[in-house]
Amino acid sequence: MSNKNQSREKILQAATRLFHLNGYHATGLNQILQESGAPKGSLYYHFPNGKEQLAAEAIQLSGQIIAADIRTRLNAFDDPIEAIQYNIQLIAEQFNQVEKLAELPTVPLGLLAAETALVNENLRQICEETFDMWDNIYIEKLTSSGYSEERARLISITTNALIEGGVTLCLTRKSSEPLLQIQKMIPLLLTK
Amino acid sequence: MSNKNQSREKILQAATRLFHLNGYHATGLNQILQESGAPKGSLYYHFPNGKEQLAAEAIQLSGQIIAADIRTRLNAFDDPIEAIQYNIQLIAEQFNQVEKLAELPTVPLGLLAAETALVNENLRQICEETFDMWDNIYIEKLTSSGYSEERARLISITTNALIEGGVTLCLTRKSSEPLLQIQKMIPLLLTK
Repeated sequence: MSNKNQSREKILQAATRLFHLNGYHATGLNQILQESGAPKGSLYYHFPNGKEQLAAEAIQLSGQIIAADIRTRLNAFDDPIEAIQYNIQLIAEQFNQVEKLAELPTVPLGLLAAETALVNENLRQICEETFDMWDNIYIEKLTSSGYSEERARLISITTNALIEGGVTLCLTRKSSEPLLQIQKMIPLLLTK
Repeated sequence: MSNKNQSREKILQAATRLFHLNGYHATGLNQILQESGAPKGSLYYHFPNGKEQLAAEAIQLSGQIIAADIRTRLNAFDDPIEAIQYNIQLIAEQFNQVEKLAELPTVPLGLLAAETALVNENLRQICEETFDMWDNIYIEKLTSSGYSEERARLISITTNALIEGGVTLCLTRKSSEPLLQIQKMIPLLLTK
């Protein structure tokens, strides 16, 4: 990777870590600069629209990383019940070491969506598109397993809500237990 | 109400509105002062521990207001399925007018919990106690309707997660649709 791209990458990584710890509004450009060790000119060169552009790219990149994770996990089992339970279990395991969460290469979409939806239409739309992308992965798995399009869509929305809400409960309780409990409900939700 | 208490109330209301719009970290004491119209000395007199105390009280007050809502709604129907669906429908209706959300007398617990859990142990604990309080209302309704303690606890965690995650999806989509979809799943979750 060229120096230029390394610097771009470092700035985006620093922003991702700070958005994870403090959220969007409370993260300042100076903090991002300091954390990344990049020169100021480099930040404006790579991200002319500043913090909003950094958040937009961090959300999009996180969305793609998580989409790839979901796809891999759903493909690991033929049975969609086992597959979705497996995905939720792996998400739950992140909360066994809460202090390492901010080292993840992804921002927490639920937090950034809730923070920005009412006040930043551009970031809200990017969050919405990310949820759409995740929905479509579940829908594809379910319809290819014989669920109707309508049923697959309903299960997908519910699964996304369970995961987002479950992550909030795991964070609040600093424990993987809420998501480990919640995944037990998947067989009931996936009744055909 | 005395002038003193009116001033206390106004400051707490202003803080609640700002926490709702921007979250905890990005809300400053000066903003709260300006929004409330209260004199600086009054803020420090009523809230000697500043922003953290304001957030703690806003979360506790919101928790109680929402607990009272949940109780009223669950008591409106004998059947716990209808009762929980009714509760979710009323939460969903708030998202028909997204622009009025910040006028609610409550802070969004999920947002404040996600923002503070990793960095403020005091606020994290208050959020956890609030979720516990809500859990107990569902558990009481379910056990008094013949569900086992274990089953009632599992349904309650799942319902809280569905609502928290559903609220995030409704915010992101600026629509009541996600929660209106999700409530259709309640009969499956409440299988005995």
